Amino acid sequence: MSDTPAGSYTRNARTTPTRDKDRADWDRDAVHAILDAGCLCHLGFVRDGAPVVLPTLYARVGGALYLHGSTGSRPLHAAREEQGLPVCVTVTHLDGLVLAKSAFHHSVNYRSVVAHGTAYQVTDPEELRTALDAIVEQAVPGRVADCRPPSAKELAATAVIRLELDQVSAKSRTGGVNDDPDDLGLPYWAGVVPVAPAYGEPVAAPHSDAELPGYLAGPAC
Amino acid sequence: MSDTPAGSYTRNARTTPTRDKDRADWDRDAVHAILDAGCLCHLGFVRDGAPVVLPTLYARVGGALYLHGSTGSRPLHAAREEQGLPVCVTVTHLDGLVLAKSAFHHSVNYRSVVAHGTAYQVTDPEELRTALDAIVEQAVPGRVADCRPPSAKELAATAVIRLELDQVSAKSRTGGVNDDPDDLGLPYWAGVVPVAPAYGEPVAAPHSDAELPGYLAGPAC
Repeated sequence: MSDTPAGSYTRNARTTPTRDKDRADWDRDAVHAILDAGCLCHLGFVRDGAPVVLPTLYARVGGALYLHGSTGSRPLHAAREEQGLPVCVTVTHLDGLVLAKSAFHHSVNYRSVVAHGTAYQVTDPEELRTALDAIVEQAVPGRVADCRPPSAKELAATAVIRLELDQVSAKSRTGGVNDDPDDLGLPYWAGVVPVAPAYGEPVAAPHSDAELPGYLAGPAC
Repeated sequence: MSDTPAGSYTRNARTTPTRDKDRADWDRDAVHAILDAGCLCHLGFVRDGAPVVLPTLYARVGGALYLHGSTGSRPLHAAREEQGLPVCVTVTHLDGLVLAKSAFHHSVNYRSVVAHGTAYQVTDPEELRTALDAIVEQAVPGRVADCRPPSAKELAATAVIRLELDQVSAKSRTGGVNDDPDDLGLPYWAGVVPVAPAYGEPVAAPHSDAELPGYLAGPAC
């Protein structure tokens, strides 16, 4: 297929949803904006023929995703091999509950990105350092400059996998309620209830006597 | 293995994480509490040998999960077959950002459940109705009694898959910062920033003139 315009990720059967195609988007900027608004992804891989989905932290750096792992974890072992680990990485933001007058038309507003590809363990020390910094920054922008950087020993004890963004699509629903004409006069409340993650009151550690940093005033990831 | 106590889900190699085993829990009540606190899951399955992870809405009813689908969607086609669809369903709550004095000890507080098994499409009309009601109630408790129930035609146009909970485990991190003794005196802020989903101001649809329902005052899912 050659209907992939410049500035877009690959548009093919794998990256095209079978339902609600009109909610799909392959535009790089749209995909990146959704990825940049989160810090938690769900990593899917196949083990012994069966699917496994695990939550983990991530960062986007240019056209790649870096996922936090552990040197002892199952997917990391596989990603260390030359052939890499086939993965699907999904990021979802639940943006609102859409309450229609009929149960049938209830829905949610959301933004999601689904990225397919092969993940590899990051072995270059510089890239590893960059990736770990990015994972901290993705969750708390401004934090890397305000904590002790990792030592060589700590870097060696941390594992990160990289997925090049290529087979990627975004999907989203925005807007209001779609009720059937016959239901419009029913006496139920209908509308959208926005949902978003929010920070609670920070709890300083007993050994912390620094002022609360200003970067914690940003939006929650 | 026979180390699965009563009131617990199956404890075996598949349901035991390779890392941070002390954070794992197979207790039914603990697993159910985590599932009941959410409404969005990530459904993993295998297509053409590769993993796919898609977000969708779910409900727990007793010892089963019901996942919302579409009659045209890919996983639903497979779950319709007699042999069912091998899946992994994961629910994750991000509860807090754990900011340590070292980048290395940064972490997150979270609760997650990972459920493995075979999913089947719900074909019994009564079970389908119960499942759809539960999916609405999981997101907005109290809503089913305050909207128009689905017609026979609407039920036929909706698909739900069922996963019996059996190969299931929970994992969580709670508590404060674990800093190295040498880092305790560093001049950076350290502590936990709680994170939780929150409702914004509801936006009534133009065709809605009912009072805002009281059940929208509950915690966001």
